[in-house]
Amino acid sequence: MTVWSIDARSGERRTEHAETTPQEVGALCRRAHDLLPVLDEAGPPGRAALLEAMADALDARTGELVAVADAETALGEVRLTGETARTSGQLRLFAEVLREGSFLDVRLDSADPGATPPKPDLRRMNVPLGVVGVFSASNFPFAFSVGGGDTASALAAGCTVVVKAHPLHPDTSVLTLAALRAGAEAAGFPGDIVQLAHGREAGIALVQDPRVKAIGFTGSVGGGRYLHDLAMSRPEPIPFYGELGSLNPLVVTPGAARTRLAEIAAGLSASATLGAGQFCVKPGLVLAPAGSGLAEAMAEHFTALDPQVLLGDPIREGFTAGAAERAAVPGLRTVATGRTGDGRQVTARLLAGPVSLLRSCDLLLEECFGPLTVVLEYEGEDELAEALAAAPGTLTVTLHSGPEEEKLAARLIALARERAGRLVFDAYPTGVTVGWAQQHGGPYPATTAPTTTSVGTAAVFRFLRPVAYQNCPPALLPPALRDDNPWSLPRRRDGVLELP
Amino acid sequence: MTVWSIDARSGERRTEHAETTPQEVGALCRRAHDLLPVLDEAGPPGRAALLEAMADALDARTGELVAVADAETALGEVRLTGETARTSGQLRLFAEVLREGSFLDVRLDSADPGATPPKPDLRRMNVPLGVVGVFSASNFPFAFSVGGGDTASALAAGCTVVVKAHPLHPDTSVLTLAALRAGAEAAGFPGDIVQLAHGREAGIALVQDPRVKAIGFTGSVGGGRYLHDLAMSRPEPIPFYGELGSLNPLVVTPGAARTRLAEIAAGLSASATLGAGQFCVKPGLVLAPAGSGLAEAMAEHFTALDPQVLLGDPIREGFTAGAAERAAVPGLRTVATGRTGDGRQVTARLLAGPVSLLRSCDLLLEECFGPLTVVLEYEGEDELAEALAAAPGTLTVTLHSGPEEEKLAARLIALARERAGRLVFDAYPTGVTVGWAQQHGGPYPATTAPTTTSVGTAAVFRFLRPVAYQNCPPALLPPALRDDNPWSLPRRRDGVLELP
Repeated sequence: MTVWSIDARSGERRTEHAETTPQEVGALCRRAHDLLPVLDEAGPPGRAALLEAMADALDARTGELVAVADAETALGEVRLTGETARTSGQLRLFAEVLREGSFLDVRLDSADPGATPPKPDLRRMNVPLGVVGVFSASNFPFAFSVGGGDTASALAAGCTVVVKAHPLHPDTSVLTLAALRAGAEAAGFPGDIVQLAHGREAGIALVQDPRVKAIGFTGSVGGGRYLHDLAMSRPEPIPFYGELGSLNPLVVTPGAARTRLAEIAAGLSASATLGAGQFCVKPGLVLAPAGSGLAEAMAEHFTALDPQVLLGDPIREGFTAGAAERAAVPGLRTVATGRTGDGRQVTARLLAGPVSLLRSCDLLLEECFGPLTVVLEYEGEDELAEALAAAPGTLTVTLHSGPEEEKLAARLIALARERAGRLVFDAYPTGVTVGWAQQHGGPYPATTAPTTTSVGTAAVFRFLRPVAYQNCPPALLPPALRDDNPWSLPRRRDGVLELP
Repeated sequence: MTVWSIDARSGERRTEHAETTPQEVGALCRRAHDLLPVLDEAGPPGRAALLEAMADALDARTGELVAVADAETALGEVRLTGETARTSGQLRLFAEVLREGSFLDVRLDSADPGATPPKPDLRRMNVPLGVVGVFSASNFPFAFSVGGGDTASALAAGCTVVVKAHPLHPDTSVLTLAALRAGAEAAGFPGDIVQLAHGREAGIALVQDPRVKAIGFTGSVGGGRYLHDLAMSRPEPIPFYGELGSLNPLVVTPGAARTRLAEIAAGLSASATLGAGQFCVKPGLVLAPAGSGLAEAMAEHFTALDPQVLLGDPIREGFTAGAAERAAVPGLRTVATGRTGDGRQVTARLLAGPVSLLRSCDLLLEECFGPLTVVLEYEGEDELAEALAAAPGTLTVTLHSGPEEEKLAARLIALARERAGRLVFDAYPTGVTVGWAQQHGGPYPATTAPTTTSVGTAAVFRFLRPVAYQNCPPALLPPALRDDNPWSLPRRRDGVLELP
């Protein structure tokens, strides 16, 4: 069996990749396990140098990477150039995390033999979880793929990585792997601390391999749930960090509609159709006041949109079916469609209807991946609150409100906080900054692990596990736990946080 | 259907408790969900006062609680009095956690409109996960039960709690609940922020209730795995923090055996039979040098042990069967048995044999709950390392070694770190201090969530979920994220940790 690299625009076959057999996946995982001590012994400073060398290697190959990824995904050179910069930026950010040292969460409790019961000397730190399996995303061929956030945070944690390439960009995956390996070797590491597998059966074998101790996944609800259930039904269940589907409701209050309708119509239309609506934080459901005319004000923006090529055939087929299904919902009207193109392009769609449709139509609470958004119109605050409360777990909720609506805003924030990982105010959810304070996660189905994030520095904690050393002879202590604190780590001593 | 409180020593029925129906569990969970805003609005200072009032109420009722728990579990007054103190101490420790504030993990990233891409103002903090279901443990009627560590850490996080009482101590559970509620009411909170359910069906309904967002569980591998799988197969899977079974290997190196054999024989025998071997960190597997005579040196301690009453009939039946099964393993010899008693008491057992038995007998890698331990004798360092590498995930690994054996110790530590949450040096694993640096967890089957702990202050993170506020108007920010830092929290600003 083979995986073909396909030109997204023409549909033509480019190159062929052999599927990785389950036996080969086993060998990759064994090798990954054997290499764990290499990352561990490098320590945080060594791994920081590794990540920076990988970032340099990616940057040095940006032109070549972008050209191949553009052929495979049709995402365009501007976006893809930005995405490679984001990807090398992520690697460098995790190098900062390693140098800063808080990720080890070192805690030292002094012995107190006179206490009741007596207290031993206890020293606790985070250690790597083990080999990590990473599933690449279709829609981010760099930032959420072979060298993306999951790989960067796993390597930072000290975990070796086996990546399952996304079938929509196998050539990009192979090229990225080569860049990462060149970087690793330049930093004195074996290149195969990151490895690559192709094909569906390989993905299943990866989740089931006993050496794999955690999975990072970004993709659909269907595929993610299947692999999640597989991970949980192993003899040894393992953490499955899956980012699945997200509706990203956006609320426009009466005050905001009154004062900023045209501005919101333009910004929201742009956000909903950016990258052909193929962002996990695309605002897919808009709650607007009935009679505000928001949908009509958005119409001109949608009508002017050129037809768009999606990431690949399965994505286009999914969008076409999802759009048709939604257009057929009784009570939902098609307010605008973009320009139409050839059979390989899709047309943007704007639908609208009364918010009461949510009571009977669960479909409107599911993500439709692609350039489509649904505006539901509410009568009064209670109907708005009821609609927001019906939303499932989501990566983001966005609130556009007026300064005089604090009481309403507080009510909506309480509802939004219960079901989202990020609350966006008077702006748009697309554009996920990578930094220390980012949270990219949320209750199911947004993710399968609501206590974690897949973007930002806190993502490293997904691949770490605490270990306490009790009464350890000084000569046997790891550097992070030694009295002289050779790595100058922030540490918590007897409950008190101490900066180096 | 009813649950009977049984006197552990006599086997006589004490009192009857109606099983909570699934419908009643639904009502408890609805109420728990409705009460979430109460804990949230109290803020960390309010919840700290709540936990301290609960601790005071437990302390005030120690005599009564201990008497009932002793009747139901036969654990004895001394142990149970210590355990109530530990339990109120845990509640007070989480009050400290609330006042210290790091649990909110506040991160503030400044806006930078000139950056590429532009950076918004991002402020991230932890919020409560929602209603938590807690399954009480048989062997800790206080510290891991109704008012135990799971409940304390969940309340600290701002989560209301529905506890499934353990069927071996329903009266203790009801009394503890009354104490917690008295404390809550004294602090101005509704008593039913903690609720109680009885019976197996109630436990299943609790795991399946859509309002429940996480489960804390301490118990057997069989029961824990069943409930874990149930939690993962919900329409919305939820975190399942289960502490299941732990072998707690203890290694004695040649150097330690040579210099401290009698001391280790005494300490290890005491640790393995403390509380009738009913601790989750009981050393159940000992790896000792062949010919060292450790098992024979332990024999006198086992022979002198009085017969013991276990926690209840199912525990005794499980131990009797498990001990018989192990005694029948070909090649394993019974080195010593304790004194025998009546049919309601069990006899301590010490078994020994060659370490090569591990290659053919998986049973020796499973926990046997009760006063039994197995000494396996190794020839040389490679056989020792191979045996340790065969151990499954475990809460602890203990290493007794000599100062001249650093190289061997390093090799063993590397193996131990990969499979345990706590490494104990030249001491014994029983006696789990509750503090900032404790780690009570480990890879499966020790727990179902190896990145977390169920003991110590870090346990609070199991019940928290991060949320980022992007471009939030100052008037709508929660106190933890305000510029003026009204709660004096440690916070990370643009990646830099700042102490208040």
